[in-house]
Amino acid sequence: MLSFECDYNNGCHPEILKRLAETNDLQTDTYGFDVYSTSAKQRIREACECPDAQVFFLGGGTQTNATVIDSMLQSYQGVVAAETAHIAAHESGAIEFGGHKVITLPQQDGKISAADLRALLVGFYGDEAYEHIVFPGMVYITFPTEYGTLYSASELVEIESVCKEYDLPLFIDGARLGYGLTSDASDISLPFLAHHCDAFYIGGTKVGALCGEAVVFTHGNAHPHFFSIIKQHGALFAKGRLIGIQFDTLFTDSLYLRIARHANELAMRVKKMLLDKGYKTFIDSPTNQQFFILPNDAMEQLAKHIVFSRWAPYDDNSTVCRFVTSWSTKESDLEYLASVI
Amino acid sequence: MLSFECDYNNGCHPEILKRLAETNDLQTDTYGFDVYSTSAKQRIREACECPDAQVFFLGGGTQTNATVIDSMLQSYQGVVAAETAHIAAHESGAIEFGGHKVITLPQQDGKISAADLRALLVGFYGDEAYEHIVFPGMVYITFPTEYGTLYSASELVEIESVCKEYDLPLFIDGARLGYGLTSDASDISLPFLAHHCDAFYIGGTKVGALCGEAVVFTHGNAHPHFFSIIKQHGALFAKGRLIGIQFDTLFTDSLYLRIARHANELAMRVKKMLLDKGYKTFIDSPTNQQFFILPNDAMEQLAKHIVFSRWAPYDDNSTVCRFVTSWSTKESDLEYLASVI
Amino acid sequence: MLSFECDYNNGCHPEILKRLAETNDLQTDTYGFDVYSTSAKQRIREACECPDAQVFFLGGGTQTNATVIDSMLQSYQGVVAAETAHIAAHESGAIEFGGHKVITLPQQDGKISAADLRALLVGFYGDEAYEHIVFPGMVYITFPTEYGTLYSASELVEIESVCKEYDLPLFIDGARLGYGLTSDASDISLPFLAHHCDAFYIGGTKVGALCGEAVVFTHGNAHPHFFSIIKQHGALFAKGRLIGIQFDTLFTDSLYLRIARHANELAMRVKKMLLDKGYKTFIDSPTNQQFFILPNDAMEQLAKHIVFSRWAPYDDNSTVCRFVTSWSTKESDLEYLASVI
Amino acid sequence: MLSFECDYNNGCHPEILKRLAETNDLQTDTYGFDVYSTSAKQRIREACECPDAQVFFLGGGTQTNATVIDSMLQSYQGVVAAETAHIAAHESGAIEFGGHKVITLPQQDGKISAADLRALLVGFYGDEAYEHIVFPGMVYITFPTEYGTLYSASELVEIESVCKEYDLPLFIDGARLGYGLTSDASDISLPFLAHHCDAFYIGGTKVGALCGEAVVFTHGNAHPHFFSIIKQHGALFAKGRLIGIQFDTLFTDSLYLRIARHANELAMRVKKMLLDKGYKTFIDSPTNQQFFILPNDAMEQLAKHIVFSRWAPYDDNSTVCRFVTSWSTKESDLEYLASVI
Repeated sequence: MLSFECDYNNGCHPEILKRLAETNDLQTDTYGFDVYSTSAKQRIREACECPDAQVFFLGGGTQTNATVIDSMLQSYQGVVAAETAHIAAHESGAIEFGGHKVITLPQQDGKISAADLRALLVGFYGDEAYEHIVFPGMVYITFPTEYGTLYSASELVEIESVCKEYDLPLFIDGARLGYGLTSDASDISLPFLAHHCDAFYIGGTKVGALCGEAVVFTHGNAHPHFFSIIKQHGALFAKGRLIGIQFDTLFTDSLYLRIARHANELAMRVKKMLLDKGYKTFIDSPTNQQFFILPNDAMEQLAKHIVFSRWAPYDDNSTVCRFVTSWSTKESDLEYLASVI
Repeated sequence: MLSFECDYNNGCHPEILKRLAETNDLQTDTYGFDVYSTSAKQRIREACECPDAQVFFLGGGTQTNATVIDSMLQSYQGVVAAETAHIAAHESGAIEFGGHKVITLPQQDGKISAADLRALLVGFYGDEAYEHIVFPGMVYITFPTEYGTLYSASELVEIESVCKEYDLPLFIDGARLGYGLTSDASDISLPFLAHHCDAFYIGGTKVGALCGEAVVFTHGNAHPHFFSIIKQHGALFAKGRLIGIQFDTLFTDSLYLRIARHANELAMRVKKMLLDKGYKTFIDSPTNQQFFILPNDAMEQLAKHIVFSRWAPYDDNSTVCRFVTSWSTKESDLEYLASVI
Repeated sequence: MLSFECDYNNGCHPEILKRLAETNDLQTDTYGFDVYSTSAKQRIREACECPDAQVFFLGGGTQTNATVIDSMLQSYQGVVAAETAHIAAHESGAIEFGGHKVITLPQQDGKISAADLRALLVGFYGDEAYEHIVFPGMVYITFPTEYGTLYSASELVEIESVCKEYDLPLFIDGARLGYGLTSDASDISLPFLAHHCDAFYIGGTKVGALCGEAVVFTHGNAHPHFFSIIKQHGALFAKGRLIGIQFDTLFTDSLYLRIARHANELAMRVKKMLLDKGYKTFIDSPTNQQFFILPNDAMEQLAKHIVFSRWAPYDDNSTVCRFVTSWSTKESDLEYLASVI
Repeated sequence: MLSFECDYNNGCHPEILKRLAETNDLQTDTYGFDVYSTSAKQRIREACECPDAQVFFLGGGTQTNATVIDSMLQSYQGVVAAETAHIAAHESGAIEFGGHKVITLPQQDGKISAADLRALLVGFYGDEAYEHIVFPGMVYITFPTEYGTLYSASELVEIESVCKEYDLPLFIDGARLGYGLTSDASDISLPFLAHHCDAFYIGGTKVGALCGEAVVFTHGNAHPHFFSIIKQHGALFAKGRLIGIQFDTLFTDSLYLRIARHANELAMRVKKMLLDKGYKTFIDSPTNQQFFILPNDAMEQLAKHIVFSRWAPYDDNSTVCRFVTSWSTKESDLEYLASVI
């Protein structure tokens, strides 16, 4: 059955598959020191306009968050995040497994505000007993958020500014980064994002790769033994080339952005279809994830024809449903959707 | 340059690549619940002759060891292993990161003995202060070992017997399992191995896959929340199908064993070539890793033509070198090797 | 300067000191196996009316919470607590250090409600992706709370009932247990409390001892290797007798309750004094901690004469202040306080 | 029954008890900021001749080792120690609980050698795959060792020298420090020791205190948030004065050294008694722990009269037994011992 359930229910973009086949027989160095990984790293540095950036390839999002955060925190520190953040809510305690508290802030549309961040930090350092409290050691945001929403350039700069004031590094989870960068609603480019944070990752798994995320420490600021920390977290791939080749392809001829733009465009058409049918958005997302409130009977009817996520109950008679597009969503999929709504 | 450095310096076996391409466009469930993973699990259960086995797919060896061991130990327990075991020596402290001690035993040819294991356990429970000592909570062995050597069926049964006596589960690291099962020197089949341990994993990364290891809990004995523990360790793949498809292919028409047998056969020919040249083995390995003592000048000479590992200094004038074959080693590679030795 | 800052700014109750002196020269077993500890454990079992209870002595509150919680949770589980709970806010991440998330619930007067607890659990098991979320593995409450307030017997039973429904153990932090049990506002006795939870601890440090907390697993349900877990947490005292002697004394002739009742009585008189002066309570505490809103100028004036805590700003012109009594607070201290308010 | 089992089977030295009584009614600051702790810290700095030293008080040895080591290591590092070291063998995995490997070296009389340490470090940095191995991050030795033996000044300086060469801090576990400093066989004074390591602790529990160890970072090199790390480890005492008063007393009029010298002198007489009877030492200890090989029938006979430790079997007919003296051992105890050997 046709599925709009998520952006990782398929294989990889055909150009990646082609490249894997072309390179399959060649022998390379291992653990990420192969020529494809080296090339991919250079392409990413150039795309970010960060010549001093350090790039590492890991396998998936939770693994990447846990490893990066562990490398940036001291043992007695925690990471500040929205209460709805992936690391706070959906990673089975991977951050706490590494010994760190996720210090949560309220969210609005999945985003934290610079004001709430400052209030937390003022309160912490204003507390007489602050040494008995977990130290805020870094700030984590997502772009786009769990709800597909986006920080604006000015919101990002404001948050960065509070981070600098308190000397906290800023880390951006970009599991779906492409969809944020290519949204019509976004005023943030990859170089802009890279220049306004200390580390971020470029999500591959949810943007056309088979697996893999590219971590970027934007100004030569990776932990000097980040490689060992990756290994300790079980996140080092023996055949590192598997991820290197994928990112080398994704960053050739802007494939990464083309994949994301394609999905966004189709998502906007899904949104229009649902709005035209009179359904209301639960949240107004400008990216490839669309959250709509569907009456339960309409939802059940639709579920006979396509697959989608039932996100959460909205009220007794309706449910928040999620519809997601990806590299693999086709024109014909939208035509079919139009026919069954 | 032609490389005999390791068995993971290439892509995957062509049949796997073909299957990835064939399935690429199909939409599936995620996180390992796809049809390919389901099929692969069933094939593995059948190959093991363990109808109650539970099978899980993870990304790499260190990750698999850390996750499985963590799921099998209580917080105050440690895992018993050879002092040369991968988990003791080459995983950057991944086991300790999970809070557990690796309790080491002496090794002979990379193997522990049932006698040494019993002595450790007798000593532990004989110690008045045993509650101040880390409890041995499970036993870890590798098949083949770091040195390519093999436990015999009777050695395995003896170790299993001590484990049963002390109620300790036995876990076998099979990062290179295929090479062990198909060695002419081995009297252990996959069903035999599966029936004489509590858990093991079938290594994919080093036996023809792009990535992935298949963990088998042999008799329905997986931790009831092993899925969450995988996620907590950052070891859950969103596109679980990537590994499922690979193992489904590896366990179709015995591809897994064919790959391993091929590599073993070529390795035996490499061994013969080196012996014929008058070089001595450092350790007599019956599998795809060959360890030879090379005079340093011969080693330097050879290094001009092919790539191989310098394992460790042997004495002032010679070095232990490792030569490894894989699915991708070809007849012509051996001919070339013969011409440059 | 006379201090009402806290209940641990002094030595121990004189009867304890006397007993330490009397026993000082005697040789005993170590690590808690001495005759005094054995006697204290029996007295505690009797006071709780729990003949099957297992009692252990640890050094301080954070240590006790971390050790007990770690022993009761599986690695992938978290502990449910009020957002203001000591373990959530004031223990420097000791619970996360052990790998566990503190899952917070809203609080009212420092207390959680059975309704909020049930809502959390219903939501968790109702979530399709619950295996990606930290499992609630136990419930933690404090008696009295951080604010000196008390759960009623019916509130406790309601919470216990939800715990039983979801098969979650209930652990009560009794750092100031005595003050709760002896408050005129309390309808909970020690046996009642012990019979309505799975584990709790009897705070010594804040109720007249030099150090030490007595953990009670109420029905033989301690982890079978809790002793080793104590040691692993660095919480085992070589001279275990130090804590055993203190608790043996505290549970002789109800000294523990006498100390607490004395402090409560004086606290009620402090409360009356402040109310009579026209000050308002920030929270209406029936135990030895009193929280009052003081105008900042009155606060500064008072601070010239006595020591107390500035808990938190209330508004621009006033501050929440905390006044605490203990075993050592004397009649004359109250007379002095009356003279300087 | 008279016991020579250990040095912590009694109360505290009477001068400490007296001081606890004298100060009992006074109100102080908490968490180690009281006047007694402040005074004790200054006395310790003076005794060490380290004006920049930072001193912290913790409760017991395992707790101190775990907390100090955790504060000095990065997450991917381990601590180097003798295979017989307390942290390697007798702390229930407290170091691994903090995520760190104990990297063991061979021991001779309980001591490591500078040569073995250098060999380990040369090997580590000489290993091509060193980033896959746990980094040696600090060195841990004990003075005296588990066997009561002592490093000489020159041995200590040699070890320190290797540490400096590889930029590894040196930490000395002084659980029984006094007995080492006052042994006739020792050429190491407290200032000498303090000037040749980065951190050490002065054991109180086993040298006359009720509890408590004083950690000394010798040159202002404590982790800037060591206080929070103590709290996170559950090692912070609310009534910090309990330990402060004890160390203030121990470092007044050299009580600490007097206690230790007394025990050593009596231990030398115990040694002579046993040698005179024809028994052999298992190890020749110059401090308060004496290890002798006793024929099993003699051991059983002696056990009818006094308590001592059966350390380990020596051979089929004899056992290594340990006899320990302390502040509380009296002339009359030795007379009794003489009468029953």
